[in-house]
Parts: sequence; C-alpha cells; structure tokens
Amino acid sequence: MIVVMQAGSEEQLIDAVLERLEEHNLRGHLVRGEERTVIGVVGAAIPPTLKEELAHFTGVQETLRITQPYKLVSRELRTQDTVVDVRGIKVGAGNCVVIAGPCSVESEEQIMKTAHAVREAGATMLRGGAFKPRSSPYTFRGMGETGLQLLAQAREETGLPIVTEVMTPNDVDLVTRYADVLQIGARNMQNYQLLEEVGRTGMPVLLKRGLSATIEEWLLSAEYVAAQGNPNVILCERGIRTFETATRNTLDLNAVALAKRRTHLPVLVDPSHGTGKWYLVPNLTLAGIAAGADGIIIEVHPDPDRARSDGAQSLSCENFAALMPKIVAVVNAVGRKM
Amino acid sequence: MIVVMQAGSEEQLIDAVLERLEEHNLRGHLVRGEERTVIGVVGAAIPPTLKEELAHFTGVQETLRITQPYKLVSRELRTQDTVVDVRGIKVGAGNCVVIAGPCSVESEEQIMKTAHAVREAGATMLRGGAFKPRSSPYTFRGMGETGLQLLAQAREETGLPIVTEVMTPNDVDLVTRYADVLQIGARNMQNYQLLEEVGRTGMPVLLKRGLSATIEEWLLSAEYVAAQGNPNVILCERGIRTFETATRNTLDLNAVALAKRRTHLPVLVDPSHGTGKWYLVPNLTLAGIAAGADGIIIEVHPDPDRARSDGAQSLSCENFAALMPKIVAVVNAVGRKM
Amino acid sequence: MIVVMQAGSEEQLIDAVLERLEEHNLRGHLVRGEERTVIGVVGAAIPPTLKEELAHFTGVQETLRITQPYKLVSRELRTQDTVVDVRGIKVGAGNCVVIAGPCSVESEEQIMKTAHAVREAGATMLRGGAFKPRSSPYTFRGMGETGLQLLAQAREETGLPIVTEVMTPNDVDLVTRYADVLQIGARNMQNYQLLEEVGRTGMPVLLKRGLSATIEEWLLSAEYVAAQGNPNVILCERGIRTFETATRNTLDLNAVALAKRRTHLPVLVDPSHGTGKWYLVPNLTLAGIAAGADGIIIEVHPDPDRARSDGAQSLSCENFAALMPKIVAVVNAVGRKM
Amino acid sequence: MIVVMQAGSEEQLIDAVLERLEEHNLRGHLVRGEERTVIGVVGAAIPPTLKEELAHFTGVQETLRITQPYKLVSRELRTQDTVVDVRGIKVGAGNCVVIAGPCSVESEEQIMKTAHAVREAGATMLRGGAFKPRSSPYTFRGMGETGLQLLAQAREETGLPIVTEVMTPNDVDLVTRYADVLQIGARNMQNYQLLEEVGRTGMPVLLKRGLSATIEEWLLSAEYVAAQGNPNVILCERGIRTFETATRNTLDLNAVALAKRRTHLPVLVDPSHGTGKWYLVPNLTLAGIAAGADGIIIEVHPDPDRARSDGAQSLSCENFAALMPKIVAVVNAVGRKM
Repeated sequence: MIVVMQAGSEEQLIDAVLERLEEHNLRGHLVRGEERTVIGVVGAAIPPTLKEELAHFTGVQETLRITQPYKLVSRELRTQDTVVDVRGIKVGAGNCVVIAGPCSVESEEQIMKTAHAVREAGATMLRGGAFKPRSSPYTFRGMGETGLQLLAQAREETGLPIVTEVMTPNDVDLVTRYADVLQIGARNMQNYQLLEEVGRTGMPVLLKRGLSATIEEWLLSAEYVAAQGNPNVILCERGIRTFETATRNTLDLNAVALAKRRTHLPVLVDPSHGTGKWYLVPNLTLAGIAAGADGIIIEVHPDPDRARSDGAQSLSCENFAALMPKIVAVVNAVGRKM
Repeated sequence: MIVVMQAGSEEQLIDAVLERLEEHNLRGHLVRGEERTVIGVVGAAIPPTLKEELAHFTGVQETLRITQPYKLVSRELRTQDTVVDVRGIKVGAGNCVVIAGPCSVESEEQIMKTAHAVREAGATMLRGGAFKPRSSPYTFRGMGETGLQLLAQAREETGLPIVTEVMTPNDVDLVTRYADVLQIGARNMQNYQLLEEVGRTGMPVLLKRGLSATIEEWLLSAEYVAAQGNPNVILCERGIRTFETATRNTLDLNAVALAKRRTHLPVLVDPSHGTGKWYLVPNLTLAGIAAGADGIIIEVHPDPDRARSDGAQSLSCENFAALMPKIVAVVNAVGRKM
Repeated sequence: MIVVMQAGSEEQLIDAVLERLEEHNLRGHLVRGEERTVIGVVGAAIPPTLKEELAHFTGVQETLRITQPYKLVSRELRTQDTVVDVRGIKVGAGNCVVIAGPCSVESEEQIMKTAHAVREAGATMLRGGAFKPRSSPYTFRGMGETGLQLLAQAREETGLPIVTEVMTPNDVDLVTRYADVLQIGARNMQNYQLLEEVGRTGMPVLLKRGLSATIEEWLLSAEYVAAQGNPNVILCERGIRTFETATRNTLDLNAVALAKRRTHLPVLVDPSHGTGKWYLVPNLTLAGIAAGADGIIIEVHPDPDRARSDGAQSLSCENFAALMPKIVAVVNAVGRKM
Repeated sequence: MIVVMQAGSEEQLIDAVLERLEEHNLRGHLVRGEERTVIGVVGAAIPPTLKEELAHFTGVQETLRITQPYKLVSRELRTQDTVVDVRGIKVGAGNCVVIAGPCSVESEEQIMKTAHAVREAGATMLRGGAFKPRSSPYTFRGMGETGLQLLAQAREETGLPIVTEVMTPNDVDLVTRYADVLQIGARNMQNYQLLEEVGRTGMPVLLKRGLSATIEEWLLSAEYVAAQGNPNVILCERGIRTFETATRNTLDLNAVALAKRRTHLPVLVDPSHGTGKWYLVPNLTLAGIAAGADGIIIEVHPDPDRARSDGAQSLSCENFAALMPKIVAVVNAVGRKM
C-alpha cells in the first residue's frame, strides 16, 4: 500500500502514520519527493482495512492499494486456467460451451420443446429459471420446485446438464437437488450469505456480474465462493448499466478479456441480457467469443412473443439453430474448440 | 401502454397486435400518423409483462409504458405524506430527523460513547451495524447479536431509537427483537425475499437506494414491502455509481426532490456514503435538507481513524456536534422543523 | 409524438394542448384510457422542438417522440449500405478495412517506419495525428503542418491513404490539403461548427462517438455533416465512459450492431481507445469485427514505450503484424472480405 | 509518481525503468514489499506524459500519479479564494450571485420582459444565448449578433451584466464586444482552441463542466484558460450524465463541495440543466447554495411553454420571483451574503 501525504505535511503527521503502521507490525518506507512525501507500506500481512483506516489521518491525501484484494481466484496465485467439470463437460481452458434455454420454465411443453431444439442445434447445456427475480412484485416469479422438476425431466430426456438460478440461502438445498450449475443472478452478486451458501455446496457456480459491479468487485464475490473451499466458479459478463438506454445494458467485452488476465476462472458471456434485443444477440454472441469468452449463455424460447419473461431478448429455436454454425465458425477462427 | 409500429408496417402486423390485445381483454386504439401507426392500449387491467410481450412482435418498433408500475407507494394513490412513527418520533411530512452513529458497532465503549455524544448534540435516532455487508470476505463483518445487544443497551441509556441493518431473511426475526427500524442496505435493494420478509414484520423499514438503481426501481422495491401490508417505508438516497471517482459515490439530490413528488413516503439522505469523505459530509448534509429530504443519516465515530469500517467517511463526535446547529439553521430556513 | 396527460387531467388542460397543436397545423388524436388520456400527434411536419414545448404545459406528464430525429443518415430513408470511397478503397457494405498508425506523428523516422510496417502487415490506410486534443495544456499537442507533410510523404511512399484529425474550423482548409479522411475526435463530436465545416468539404469524414454520447446523438452529429451535402461519413465507436475504471473506456459493441441497423453509414471500431491497454487490443479487435464492424482503427507505434502519447494503448509493429492474420480469419469466419 | 511492478518482476525489468527515469533526470526510489516492488519517482520536473510512457514497460503493473496535473488553478498554489469582478459584482469568497434569464434570446419583447422581471426579483446578472449548440441540425440555433445586441440593450435598461455563450474561436471577438461574461458550454469544455481564445481575452469566463467530465478534467480545462494569463474563471456544475433518465442530468453537488477544496476559483450551480424539469429547480437551487456554491444560474422565461428551447426546465418570471426569498433565506442560514 502507498500513503500519499499532502504537500508540505509536517513531520509529526508523517510520524503518526509510521506509528500506526508499527502497531500493525508493518514498516513505512519514506520516499521524499520535491512536493510531497509518499510512504510505501511494507510487511507480511497488510490488513484489508488499512487503506480506509489511514485515509482519515490528518495530512494524508490519499491511500492507494497496489495489490489485488482477492487471492484464491487471482492469476498471480494460479497461472493455469481452472477447468470446471459439469457432468463431463469441461468449462474453461480453450473449450467453448453454449448454454441455451428459456428465461423461465413456463410449462412442460415449453421446456421440453426448447430442450430438444437447443440440443439438436448443438447446445451443450440447458438454462431455465424456476425462481425469478423481478423488479415488480406483480409479475411472474417462476414455477418454483415444479420448474426444477421439469428441468430435471428435460435433462433426463436430452442429457443436457441444467443451469438454474438460486435466489436465497434457504433455497440452496432445494435447488442443489436438481441443478448441475447454480446460477447467482446479477442482483445477487453481492448477497454474501448466498455466496457462502453456494460455496459450501462445492457445486459449479455461475456467477453473473452485477449491473454496476467493477471487475474487482466481481472477482471479490468469486473469492467469497472460493473461500468456502469451492473452486468451481464460472464467471459471466451480462452487461453493465450505463447512460446508453438504446440497449437494455452495455455488454462489456473489455471485462471479459481483462478478467481472463486477472483470474484463472472461466468467463462466459450472456448476450441476451447484455443487449436486451433478440436481433442484436447473434452479433454480440460472436463478438463475445472473439473477445475470448469460454462460452455463451443465450435465452431461447419456442414462442418468444408469448414468453412470460424476457421475450424481447429471446431467440426463437429457429434463430438459435441458424446461429450455431456461425458460433462454430468463429470458435474455429480464434483457434478454440467446442 | 403505447405500441409504436415501424414505419410502413403492413396491416396484418397491426392486426396481430390487436388480436393479442383482445386475448388480454384490452382494446387497441389506432393513431395513424404520416409515417407510422401508433396503437394506444386501453383496458382495465394491463398485465405488467405486456410491454415485453409485444416488444418481440414483428413490425413493432417500440413499446412504451405510460403509467408507473408501482401503485401503493405512488402519490397518485395517496397525495398526503406518509408519516412513519418510530417510538413516537415522526418521520415525514415536514419533520426532519437526524440519525447518527457508527458504521459498525465495535465495542461497548465505542457505541455508548457515540450514543451519548450524538444524543447531546441533538440527534433523534442512533444508527449502528451489527451485520455488515463487505465486498471482501477478509474484512470485519460486524459483531452480530452481541452488536444488537449493545445497541439495545445504548437505547436504554439514551432513549434513542435504533436503526440497524438486516442482511438476509433468516436474520429478520433476530434483528426485529432489537431494532426499531430495519435497514435494507443498498446492495440488498433488490433482494426480494428479504424485502418481503421485512414487509411481513410491519416494522419501520429504511430502504436504501441501490448503487445503480433507477428511482423507479427503488420505488418498486418499496412496493414489495408495502405489498406485504407494511406501509412504514422510509426511503434513503445514499449516492449512485457514476464515472466520477473523486468521490466514493455521486449523491443524487435530484432523486430526493423527484421521489418526494412520485411517492408519499418519507425520503432521507445519507451524505456519508453519498460522498465517502468526511470533510464533504457537512456541506452535503445541508444540501440534502435544502433539497427537501425528511432527514439525514450520518456516520459518526468517536475515533474515526481507528474505525473498523468507513472511517474515511465518518465524522468525529466533535465535528458532528459542530454540524448540528447548521442543520437546524437550514431546516428553519426552508420552513421545516426538527 | 405522444403526449401523456397526468391521471385525472381536466378537459381544459387537454384542450390547451389540442389548441397548441392546431397552431402548428397538427391534429391531436385522443386515446382515453382507464387512468389517463394520451394524445397522439398527427401531421405532416412536427417541429423538432414540440416535445419540449408541450413538456411545460400544466397537466402534461410526459411527451414521447416516436420517430428518430435524424433523417438523411437513417436506414428508413435508405436501406442500402453507404459505401465511402477513399482513394479507391471501399468502406462499408461488407468490406473490412484496417487503419493503423501512431497516435501522433512524432518524426519522419517514426511515421515512415510505422507506415511501411503496417503496409507490409496488410493495413489498408494510415492513421496519425498532427493536431492532438490533450486534457492538459502542458502536454505534447502534435507537430501541426509539419506532421501533415510527413503523413503526405508516407502516403507517397506506401500508397496508404491518410486519416488524420482536424480539431477546429479554422484548420479544415489546411488539413483538407493533406488528408484523405478527416477525423473528428470524440471530444468534438458535438462541435457543430466543425461538423458543418467538414460537411462542406465533401470529403470522407471519420466521426468518432463522444465519450458519453448516446447512439442517437452520434447519428444526429452525422446528420450535421450529411445536411451539408456530404454523404461520406464513417462512424467510429471508440469506447464510452462508465463507472468501470479498470479499462480506459468501455468499448460498446452493442452500439456497433445497433448503429448498423439504424443507419446506412459504415461503422468502424477503435479498440485502442476502447480499452486503453495494448494487451487487450487484439481480443477486442476481433470482437469488433465479429460484432459487425466495417473495419478497425488501431494505434501502432514502432517503440510504444517512447511514444509521446497513447503509448500504453499502442501495439508495437510486431504485435500488429501478429494480429493481422487473426483479423483475416475472423473476417472470413463472419462471411465478409477485406 | 509511483510505478508498481508486477509481482516477481525480475531485476532487469526494474533496471529498465530506473534507466528511463535517469534519461529524464529523475531518480527512482525502490520500496521492496513482500510481493512486489514499487518505485517512487523523485525529481524536480516529472514530464506529464511519464505515466503513460512507463505504463507500456514490460513488468510494470500500474503507474500512479500522486500530484494534481493542474497548477495555476489549484488550492495548493493559492489558498485564498479568487474573486472575479464582473462590472463591480464580486463572484467568489462568500458572495452569492444569481444569474437568471432565458435559454435563448428570442425577441426584443421576450428578453426585455425577462430582464426587468429578474432584476426586480433580485437577480444580479442576466443570462441569454445568442448562439446555441443543439444536438439536431434542424432546431433553432439562436439569433446570432442580433441576439447579442438585444442583450446589450437589456443591460443598458436594467444595469444587469450579461452572461452569454460563445461556441467557436471565430466568434470570440464578436461576443466579447457585447458580453460581460463569456460562457463556455458543457459540450465545449474540452474545445481547447476555444479555451485558449477566451483565455487571451482576459475577460470573465463561465466554464461549464462537461456532461461526462471528471472534476480533474474540468479543472484542467480551467487551467487552459488560466495558462493564457486569464485568472477570471468561474466554474459551473450543470449536471452529469448517468444511468438515471428520470431527470435530464444528475446534478453533482459533491463536485461543488470538492471543487471548492481543490481550486480557489468560484463555483456556481445550474439547477435548470442539472434537473431538466422546472418543478425540481427550486429545491436544487437551495441545495446548490447549501452545498457551498458561490451562486446560481437559472433559466427564466416569461412564457416557458412558448420557449424556443429549454422550456421544460425554465421557470416562469412568477416562479422565479417566488424562489428568490427562499434563496436569500438559505444564503443567510449558511452564513454567506448576496
């Protein structure tokens, strides 16, 4: 950590910082510049709160952290890519997965139809929500356990592993009985009890980036899961909130490329939420892969204009089938494999 | 709702929309302009998902909602200000409250010292966290129930009602036993299970705006609480996330003035999180009141540079005491009372 | 246009709106819903300021525009892609161009070395700044006319057309004498005098999106150029400003795909400014092409760590050469050609 | 400046940085931590581009600037408040000015009526645009010199000094002949030629913050003016662009309080652009003053629903007159004077 003193800070203010460092068994290394003094903090264990603690000292202009606050998920700890195994399907390290399915499970017919269609088109996993977070209390919030049972039935018929969201710590046990991958939604990226609860299951976790989460905060949330002894975290960029409202969100593909450098975890892209418009999904799917993503998660519905949620951003089964060969072409072009 | 058709949409596409409206027992009212046709949707019960449903139709350019999606908390339903009663203290309708206290309860000495100091300076309630959401799993996360007990003890000694955060549905029972106001933190503004759980308690709820929540989403979250039969919701603006990083957040006082028009609920301001820098807190406190807030919630710590969290944005007891007369002066200047 | 009245607005307030519409030779078409009345505005020529004019009327809740405010550059006017011809190189309609070169022209050696290197690697045009906008008045601001002369010399030696920025109306004549494409920088996207001045030249214009410009504002700025009779506008997405600071900007590839639907103009991507980090440039270059861009503009410097500007985001000549075959592979994969 | 090396960087990479520093006559001061080495840069003249230059070096993780890049406008250079004199009216250092008037000058009757009304209500200067930047090329762009003449006439009749915008370097001479304060609009905050041109006049300059400009960039733009020998810069916060669209912009009052600490220049607030809604203007006006602003600039129009621009955010003369006593009350409450 670096402590920048205000220009012309008196010696006693510098000493106060040095004394506090000593209390923490740290050393302060002074760099005296022309205008101001900078203190480099050296020691084995810098407490995570030190930055904030010193920020309040008189004479301190700024405190700057120079190491990443996450450890287990960082590339520095582990340079090799993590590969998450989902019923034999490998996620990460050059493999490209395609997870497809409806926003919500709505009926047996709907989910079976979709599962078969995406399976035939070449998808590797099935997504579908049984518990749905909705901004309004007056909208459809999912079929609950019945939805989970339908997903399990779809898996039995198609062999596709199931990715489904869990919204609250109390539901983790239930969802774990049916799902292959536990999805943590964007709104819950900083629901720490939930992160720890899915961490304790040891199961694969798909962690969506929050709407306004920095890459660092996203990786810190992954660290919450990993700190419970669960290394099977798959990150997912799904668009951030910006001033641009012509699209539902702004898909941040910079974040995909940068996250791949900062962490060894696999990173997926969700172009459905990332754009909010089905007709933009194909282009951004291909862009996501070209940016270096380890796979894609797409909303597909057999009849999007009757979907109970997210219809506007769902591909029809036909449009999804038409997209798959293009995905394969780009995956090959960038030297990866499906 | 308004459905805007693309320029030159054929009649059959318009008919498809009209037919779907009929399925919902709604009527479509055509307005044929020079370039494009617009369909006004008329009927008693427009389903909340209709906007999304029609967005996917061929020939539809855009769907626009013209009514607010929240009902119970809207000014249209109730023009009179809601007054929330917290142990006899009235929040809303021209009264101005000042809630002060540390970010986290850290020890008996710390919380008692603060409680007495803010009480003497004129604060009307005490804040303090026993459960703390933290971005990193490696930082102090609160004293838990012991913290709640210390808060109760502080209430006993000073008479100040207690505002404290509850983070997860499972803790609601516990926190309810000690708190006078249940605080929902910014990261949990869209934790719907939690909102419903605190809704069921009937207790006063302080609902912080999410970092990147629109005013509409904020009011929809209040609607979740109100829909459980709990009208005692106090809103709190605490800064939003923008491109500006010179301050921790951007305090959005526009939102305070606008929320006061759109809802009958009281609205507070949190200048500590709103700025992240203790030396900006006094100015933004006064600005919040002048903008029309029904009160202020401020972080105060007897020794900010030893605070275990949020030290950089906490006022010392002395600085808080120096601020109170200024608060009173502005409250009077804008024709309100404390 | 649509005028939404407040719930329960009295007839006389509605009449006031209708009368104002008549003054403009427009008709108001009433749609009376359960809660509120909506007025559809119908007529041949709706003045661009009507939205704002009616917004101030008593009883008006909101005014909504339903047509795009730009005309000449819109897909509705012209469905066929515009192809801009730059010395025989076609930009748009499936061709993919690669414009490469240094941020600033710094010396004869530097620009010649770069020009030859990017030419050999397969670039189709040369970029380089002679006039540089800089946030600080104390940094290098370009070589001016000498820089332009060096660019012209590089064109003579390599045959590559020249793309260079013009910053102020007074410099348009000068820059026009040397450049093949006049670049309008992000900070000048709404410098309307400059847009009109380059509009009057009839020359190809590369119009960068402003840091916080919506897609609509970007296209309106293109309309400024087109309205002067100059159809040769090439759009360029270069990243927008968001809360994320781990990258210099957030490259908005949604905007590329959406702009291609809303306008017939070609759209390029600038991954150098879009990321601000040279090691992210290759991934985002490929992503840009996959998203549907008509080409790429990249900063290349023979010795990036001695560049006088933008070194951190410039590729070395070797890195650029290594990237070119990957670009070709993705261009082919998405069915386009270079 | 601080150079942070990647964890485990080899000595030769550190040496490369040190050698480069020597080339610039700087010294590098090594701080060797447990994980990584940090280099403090010490010397009399650190080139402004050094940060970027070193960012590209192999082994460098990050480069951090620790001094503000602006000098003349900084509090460190000059602790005393600058007072700008506008025809005898003092702006800054505890005085609070109120600048009022229409967005655009539209006619003799309109500007005279407004000038007299705001004068009687207690305004201290008159604003009005003769040259208007507009996003669309098809809207009213001001009366040009005729508008300036009308403003001068209004000054003659009322004695109010004139604040009016200049949009392009070529117009500076013309506008200077009529105006008392040259306004630089938000879109032109980084139009450097224009900044230097108004800098050369020596006249008072009102510099609006750009829609997405950081506080640092805003002060750097002020530095451009000051660097031409013109210390008479008045800053103006007018709202930034964020994800929230319920208001036109997000008025950033944090920025007002922070700018007052970082610079000695006066800072005004524009609640009209800051909110975009006339009915929010009174509350945010008072909030601006309470936040520490040295004054307010407000749009007032005698007939807002016939205004040719910005009608939705303009106060009527009556509403402005009703606001003035409230302004006075808050000015007094915060211990300042008008």
